[in-house]
Amino acid sequence: MRRDGGRVELIGVPGIPLIQTGDDLAELIAQALQANDLTLLDGDVMAVTSKIVSKSEGRWVDLDSVMPDDEALRIAAQCGKDPREVAIILSEAESVSRVRQGVLIVRHRLGFVCANAGIDHSNTRPGGQWRLLLPVDPDASARGLRQNLERRFEIKIGVVISDSHGRPFRMGTVGVAVGSAGLPARWDLRGKPDLCGARLQITEVGFADELAAAAGLVSGQSDEGIPVVIIRGLAYPVDESAGAADLVRPPDLDLYR
Amino acid sequence: MRRDGGRVELIGVPGIPLIQTGDDLAELIAQALQANDLTLLDGDVMAVTSKIVSKSEGRWVDLDSVMPDDEALRIAAQCGKDPREVAIILSEAESVSRVRQGVLIVRHRLGFVCANAGIDHSNTRPGGQWRLLLPVDPDASARGLRQNLERRFEIKIGVVISDSHGRPFRMGTVGVAVGSAGLPARWDLRGKPDLCGARLQITEVGFADELAAAAGLVSGQSDEGIPVVIIRGLAYPVDESAGAADLVRPPDLDLYR
Repeated sequence: MRRDGGRVELIGVPGIPLIQTGDDLAELIAQALQANDLTLLDGDVMAVTSKIVSKSEGRWVDLDSVMPDDEALRIAAQCGKDPREVAIILSEAESVSRVRQGVLIVRHRLGFVCANAGIDHSNTRPGGQWRLLLPVDPDASARGLRQNLERRFEIKIGVVISDSHGRPFRMGTVGVAVGSAGLPARWDLRGKPDLCGARLQITEVGFADELAAAAGLVSGQSDEGIPVVIIRGLAYPVDESAGAADLVRPPDLDLYR
Repeated sequence: MRRDGGRVELIGVPGIPLIQTGDDLAELIAQALQANDLTLLDGDVMAVTSKIVSKSEGRWVDLDSVMPDDEALRIAAQCGKDPREVAIILSEAESVSRVRQGVLIVRHRLGFVCANAGIDHSNTRPGGQWRLLLPVDPDASARGLRQNLERRFEIKIGVVISDSHGRPFRMGTVGVAVGSAGLPARWDLRGKPDLCGARLQITEVGFADELAAAAGLVSGQSDEGIPVVIIRGLAYPVDESAGAADLVRPPDLDLYR
């Protein structure tokens, strides 16, 4: 977070190919950087969409392979979705949060509350019968990508794995962090003095979420999507242990259960 | 939103003075730009914190001037807040959303759901007895600021008025747009083809919120806060009629009433 009125750059990395199962993302990102005369600098944050991470991890499910159980059939009838799709969503869910016509919101096994368990059926595979799940452990994916890129470029960076989520009280989706590494996902500014010398009461910033939202401005959503964005010029403390899981509000603090 | 892998810059504008009631924000911003060898370019988005807009509009309330009524006293007992503070919050609220110890979440008269009706008691006035309300009509404030800056600089820009909000299911605050002008607050990408030629189903992006979150990375939260951030390099359609009110999910679509 800048405190000197400085500049932050959001640099889209073009030329990332369609990702296949088993692809080495760090290698493909390094190639795309080189092809575009770009490099990574110490302190950069690399924002990567969850979609390409999932694809590299082969998180596909064939809709035709799914046999919906009674619960899936019941919920599918309530929300009007394909029972097989509902079965996939439930397989990724810890609990069901809200069901209405056209709406299925769950608490994902990773903790966050989102529509359709973050399962994707756009920009995926031709044919339309495939669904793409979120990465198994996006914080681990972020740590792996960070380690790999740091070794290649001999620098220290942060990594954010972003997804687009709807919000309960706001229209439109925004980028949020489903995985992160090397930076404080939550940045606690409590206790710092404010402009009048008083102590700030609650100023814990969802730093990784703001990074994901910023990257979303560049990455776009459609046919020429840019799945990798470098965020350059921020001063933030390196944090080896933090992850986007820190952004999940524990159920007992969840005010809208 | 870039589709060519381009660069977006977030440029903090230093040197904005402490804002007083009646100050001409456009004039002070223009002075700060000049003092820092900065200018505005066609298509820039100017992100401004709601705090300085409120201050220029004199949205102060003296805590000692408030006489809490029975409802305020009752709710204050439930959440453990100062009854006068609760009375101010209720005066800005359309309805009460959640009350718990230490927590008072309301639907603001402007439509959005947030803690403490967005009322600020950090970075405000020395003494601690003053509270700062959100602008009366932040979309109108954004339109006014846009008009003034466009006239001065002879360009077209977008304006976002940002605030930091908590989220029901996520820890940490992020920047959101409470006002906007000149840009699509919600950007509807439905119907555009995705990478596989299929039509995207729901990709309405909370564009003004992503802008506010990106600006939050630069503006910081504490003693050297940067309340004005230029966002440069985005390609977005000019929208004369949109405002951040478009981001409010109507109560009948609110899934967590």
